Amino acid sequence: MALIVEKYGGTSVGDVERINAVADKVAGARAEGHEMVVVVSAMSGETNRLTELAAEVNPEVPARELDVLLATGEQVTIALLTMALHRRGCDARSYTGGQVHIRTDAVHGRARILDIEDARVRHDLCQGRVVVVAGFQGVDEAQNITTLGRGGSDTTAVAMAAALKADECRIYTDVDGVYTADPRIVPEARRLDSITVEEMLEMASLGTKVLQIRSVEFAGKYRVPLRVLSSFGSGPGTLITFEEPLMEQPMISGIAYNRDEAKLTIRGIPDEPGIAYRILGPISDAHINVDMIVQNVGADGTTDLTFTVHRNDYPQSLSILKQTAEVLSARDVVGADDIAKVSIVGVGMRSHAGIATTMFRSLAEEGINIQMISTSEIKISVVVDDKYMELGVRTLHKAFGLENGTKHGDTPPSAG
Amino acid sequence: MALIVEKYGGTSVGDVERINAVADKVAGARAEGHEMVVVVSAMSGETNRLTELAAEVNPEVPARELDVLLATGEQVTIALLTMALHRRGCDARSYTGGQVHIRTDAVHGRARILDIEDARVRHDLCQGRVVVVAGFQGVDEAQNITTLGRGGSDTTAVAMAAALKADECRIYTDVDGVYTADPRIVPEARRLDSITVEEMLEMASLGTKVLQIRSVEFAGKYRVPLRVLSSFGSGPGTLITFEEPLMEQPMISGIAYNRDEAKLTIRGIPDEPGIAYRILGPISDAHINVDMIVQNVGADGTTDLTFTVHRNDYPQSLSILKQTAEVLSARDVVGADDIAKVSIVGVGMRSHAGIATTMFRSLAEEGINIQMISTSEIKISVVVDDKYMELGVRTLHKAFGLENGTKHGDTPPSAG
Repeated sequence: MALIVEKYGGTSVGDVERINAVADKVAGARAEGHEMVVVVSAMSGETNRLTELAAEVNPEVPARELDVLLATGEQVTIALLTMALHRRGCDARSYTGGQVHIRTDAVHGRARILDIEDARVRHDLCQGRVVVVAGFQGVDEAQNITTLGRGGSDTTAVAMAAALKADECRIYTDVDGVYTADPRIVPEARRLDSITVEEMLEMASLGTKVLQIRSVEFAGKYRVPLRVLSSFGSGPGTLITFEEPLMEQPMISGIAYNRDEAKLTIRGIPDEPGIAYRILGPISDAHINVDMIVQNVGADGTTDLTFTVHRNDYPQSLSILKQTAEVLSARDVVGADDIAKVSIVGVGMRSHAGIATTMFRSLAEEGINIQMISTSEIKISVVVDDKYMELGVRTLHKAFGLENGTKHGDTPPSAG
Repeated sequence: MALIVEKYGGTSVGDVERINAVADKVAGARAEGHEMVVVVSAMSGETNRLTELAAEVNPEVPARELDVLLATGEQVTIALLTMALHRRGCDARSYTGGQVHIRTDAVHGRARILDIEDARVRHDLCQGRVVVVAGFQGVDEAQNITTLGRGGSDTTAVAMAAALKADECRIYTDVDGVYTADPRIVPEARRLDSITVEEMLEMASLGTKVLQIRSVEFAGKYRVPLRVLSSFGSGPGTLITFEEPLMEQPMISGIAYNRDEAKLTIRGIPDEPGIAYRILGPISDAHINVDMIVQNVGADGTTDLTFTVHRNDYPQSLSILKQTAEVLSARDVVGADDIAKVSIVGVGMRSHAGIATTMFRSLAEEGINIQMISTSEIKISVVVDDKYMELGVRTLHKAFGLENGTKHGDTPPSAG
């Protein structure tokens, strides 16, 4: 008898057959005695259809009206799923974001949830009803319809779970959980039973696209137990916990990668205070996000600075950096967009030495040259040649024994 | 500088091109200085698409959820039209029924409007904005989404006009006004510049399908000047007035017809008080609407009673009437479903004698036998053989000089 919030994305409710499958799942959980709140997205393809219709009418789509238009997508799904539940003899009610008072700020297209009024939902749950809520949408203070932007339905689900103090928030996707690495690259990759919020944040930002980072942050902030699982299978998925790491916590949870970056280096610049700001200031003024930054001190009183940006921003960044180089009388500017970032992530590395050494040694043994290194408390990232990305991920997955999940924090592998 | 409420139906907003045409019209009126409120329906075909989707999910569609689903249809249109207005440099805001507090009772699928809060709309109008409102929908007291049923968008427009005390409510349709008769039957039929609400009610219920009767009643009740006009042409349409008829009011405004009825007669029943109730009671108990009722007194202390029902209800009515006949020891029951009703409508007939005589004589001259007659203050209806329907309409149109519109109340045609 738990209170469970479930979220089904666009693919999971993509047609009538799939909506029926979701209704079976939800009605089943209700029949087991659980109190159920279900958050759904627009049927896959619907948001694109509406966006194209809008662009046809007005290429400079007014943001307020686009939200009014897009919000119909989830409204269709909540009605259909609720009808499907009724057909299964399962009492249910659908609600738009506005109807359950998902109050947001007024930033159309990427609004942030401020508050949820839970009275109505609680009343329905008390009556034994399943509550079906439109994801991705809310209303601002003046009751204007807003949408939450990418991954918004995940955020709605987590926010509902937080407001209702749900026992668990289940995000159903087309993968059956979070893996130790991308299974397309590492066939031995293993589904993790659990992962901490912090690890998940590092994994997500590094390109393991399972959950939108915003909903994970939200879950961490409100301590909502979050589970990622497949809407097509029946496995337990991966639980994202906010607990402190235990002794049996594996040292490394997974290997992530990102091949969407490019690196730029400015060489032979004066090694003096404020130099990093003078180089990176013009980049951020152009609204370009910088990811990794590494500065080396040279022998001759000059230094080099290397940073990475999104690959799409590479040409513009290069041109900005060349202008900066002239101003600073730098020796030269070099760059490359055929790079990849490979990272190991795990809260266990906080308390264990030798992790970095194991990483660097195993890459070296495979002849993979490391171009950049950057570290955080629970992550070590290296930049390597693009072509070594898959080999690098597989090598590290093996080096940290992730395929069998037995190497835990208390039995570190080959401390260096 | 008038405050005008306009309503565009599904055909008028059926695709992007047509939405652009409506935006041109509305932006034009706004540019002339008028305050504009626009009520729109779902794009044609959309309501059917959604209804079919619902039936696929649950053949016994729960009414509350069907309303949630169908309400998305108009929401799409308001967003697209508002975007199109923005593109024309015309500031505009869209609102769902719930957002402008179109409060209804809780009867899903055919809710009645109880109240409209006009503050928000007035505020936007003051700011110079066009207000675009979703027709057909509202919310009940608990904020559940409701729909108004057939012709609901017309009702929304009239209700908005009443709440705002608009100078005129314009209903754009695919016809350019109300005609003296169906132009498919009478090529000489003429568009009326104006018609009274009462006449319109008689015309509408008799099968001239221009406006839903409910919105006309509403307009009459709140004295909203209502104009029917074409969304594709530029004519002035027909104004539906609530003024008292003037002297120059034409005696007859139009000829209406209805071929959806069947007649039933029970003969040789005792001519005693309560007999009509004992015959028609079982019919209405079966939820069958009776239209015309005629009772003749016979010579032998018995009487005959004839009434008409919708043709679809004919078999059931006949079987009920036969049971009643047995109970009452009636002589026999006869009926026919190959009949048509032809009516002349006009407030002018109140003050003029001889109208009925002109009607009966002109029909007789064409050899058309009258099977039933029924009269009201502003209408005379006759039932004739189905095959004479077109001839009857043309004959009456000519007899009352409707083709040239010159025969007014003060110059009655051939008073009989």
